[in-house]
Amino acid sequence: MEASRPGEFELIARYFAPLAARFPGAAGLKNDVAVLSVPPGYELAVKTDTIVAGMHFLPNDPADTIAKKALRVNLSDLAAAGSAPLAYQMALSLPKDWTEAWMGQFVDGLADDQKIFGVHLCGGDTVATPGPLTVSITAFGLAAIGQAMGRSGAKPGDDIWVTGTIGDAQLGLALLQSGLEPLSDAARTYLVDRYRVPQPRLSLAHHLFTTARATIDVSDGLAADLGHICTASGVGAVIEAGAVPLSQPARELVGRDPSLLASLLTGGDDYEILLTASNDMRNAIDILARQLGFPITRIGRIVAGNAVNVMRFGTRLGLERPGFRHF
Amino acid sequence: MEASRPGEFELIARYFAPLAARFPGAAGLKNDVAVLSVPPGYELAVKTDTIVAGMHFLPNDPADTIAKKALRVNLSDLAAAGSAPLAYQMALSLPKDWTEAWMGQFVDGLADDQKIFGVHLCGGDTVATPGPLTVSITAFGLAAIGQAMGRSGAKPGDDIWVTGTIGDAQLGLALLQSGLEPLSDAARTYLVDRYRVPQPRLSLAHHLFTTARATIDVSDGLAADLGHICTASGVGAVIEAGAVPLSQPARELVGRDPSLLASLLTGGDDYEILLTASNDMRNAIDILARQLGFPITRIGRIVAGNAVNVMRFGTRLGLERPGFRHF
Repeated sequence: MEASRPGEFELIARYFAPLAARFPGAAGLKNDVAVLSVPPGYELAVKTDTIVAGMHFLPNDPADTIAKKALRVNLSDLAAAGSAPLAYQMALSLPKDWTEAWMGQFVDGLADDQKIFGVHLCGGDTVATPGPLTVSITAFGLAAIGQAMGRSGAKPGDDIWVTGTIGDAQLGLALLQSGLEPLSDAARTYLVDRYRVPQPRLSLAHHLFTTARATIDVSDGLAADLGHICTASGVGAVIEAGAVPLSQPARELVGRDPSLLASLLTGGDDYEILLTASNDMRNAIDILARQLGFPITRIGRIVAGNAVNVMRFGTRLGLERPGFRHF
Repeated sequence: MEASRPGEFELIARYFAPLAARFPGAAGLKNDVAVLSVPPGYELAVKTDTIVAGMHFLPNDPADTIAKKALRVNLSDLAAAGSAPLAYQMALSLPKDWTEAWMGQFVDGLADDQKIFGVHLCGGDTVATPGPLTVSITAFGLAAIGQAMGRSGAKPGDDIWVTGTIGDAQLGLALLQSGLEPLSDAARTYLVDRYRVPQPRLSLAHHLFTTARATIDVSDGLAADLGHICTASGVGAVIEAGAVPLSQPARELVGRDPSLLASLLTGGDDYEILLTASNDMRNAIDILARQLGFPITRIGRIVAGNAVNVMRFGTRLGLERPGFRHF
């Protein structure tokens, strides 16, 4: 079985080169380097994220969802930075027990997402590892010069907004780990899918420069990522827990167990965009949300100081865990 | 002990942010993305290489040499592509037993190399792994538009040249693994250092476009990498084993055991530049080698066909192992 598996060069030719076929700078993955052309007036936004089996996804997650997650966590950052995805490099550390069926499904996941997001594999490296499957992607996006967004522009008085809904991925993971009572099949499928396959908000990206002051994607958890904006901007923040947008399945679960709410605000893996904006942008953002077809919800405001406070019924909500810690 | 170790954000602030301090597009590693500006008239050469403990370096190699190897294997590709290094992203998968002393030495290795090569950390990701230490670097270099070099330009009649000496790293690894009789301390140190700390030939990079037709860095092994050029160019090659440049310690070891020679041509990890050039470039390349201060040695020629033949005393040398296989 193992002897019949393709070696590195066959692996590149059979599985990876087709993913690079439409990106001329990849030269069919036949050169040592990829060549990226950045059009005049643009800069390159660059992001690297690594996902490790058992840490960032479950080892038995379907291979296509692992591939999609590896790519999308990076595209989410490109979106929050206001950039449009161009290409990516993939460093794949493969345990020895990989199969061709698994690899085919993994590559199908990437191929799907390349069509959806208009992005191309341009290079990478594949190595054998005695450790767990590890996928490290470095993604490239284009941003007009000086218009890439970051964490440091928030000002006291800004509104705080977040796209989509928060906490679904956390609940999806808990369902997979059987730590929660089952819901309906549809609700379970929805939440698990939110854990496995993030939805990067790329359609919002090119509106951020004219709309927002500070942006970040919610990966470590809403409270922690808001904390990153506050640290970088030298400000504090107050959010109203009741205003944080929850999906219908999340609302049901919080209805059964209200203590869940705090964990949703710190759980992470949401891959929504958190942004601050001057409060004269409220109408513009409401109109934008309708145009884009997903909610953008106002959940609080930036204040002087350096603390992030989450309020609930007029009192400060204690958060046990300020966000995902990588160590 | 473990409880007192820094978490992810302290790790970034204390160890990694200083490596990014002089690269404005890194924004002090405080944003989700780095921003790379490519000057008009240039393109970005991009390379990703991963090294895994126990596979590409020895787990007990000094931390600074692991860092240098991780960076330099990428810089070697940028050099072979004719580009000048600009910045890099680092994805670090850390086993749980890392120590601050180890991390300090690792970062010192990167800081040293940043000074030597004029390159800067611009971003990355650090994750915990139950597997071995894995360092995946994506490096960026600048090349004038249309002047990035690759594997596909070789033509029958071209000379084949290689920089430096071949086989040292392979012998250094064998010495570390005690598979070879010890040499003098100086020879041993030289060979081990060649295994642990490659010397990317960056000073040659900007001469390649005017001198060479096809280039590659020797990482999989001289014979295998020459094979990559032949495949991409649709040509064959003949090299003379006796012409392949060996260091004094390698010559001593081959003198003791002539059967070693074949393994040096396939061993890999050399990180020298292999190039083909029209034979009217012979004088120019000889002068260039004197200017740059390292040998560039003519070892064979490109021929019609698709085979790579290594000749020794007029007969074809059988190579047991065509090069490093990653699986």
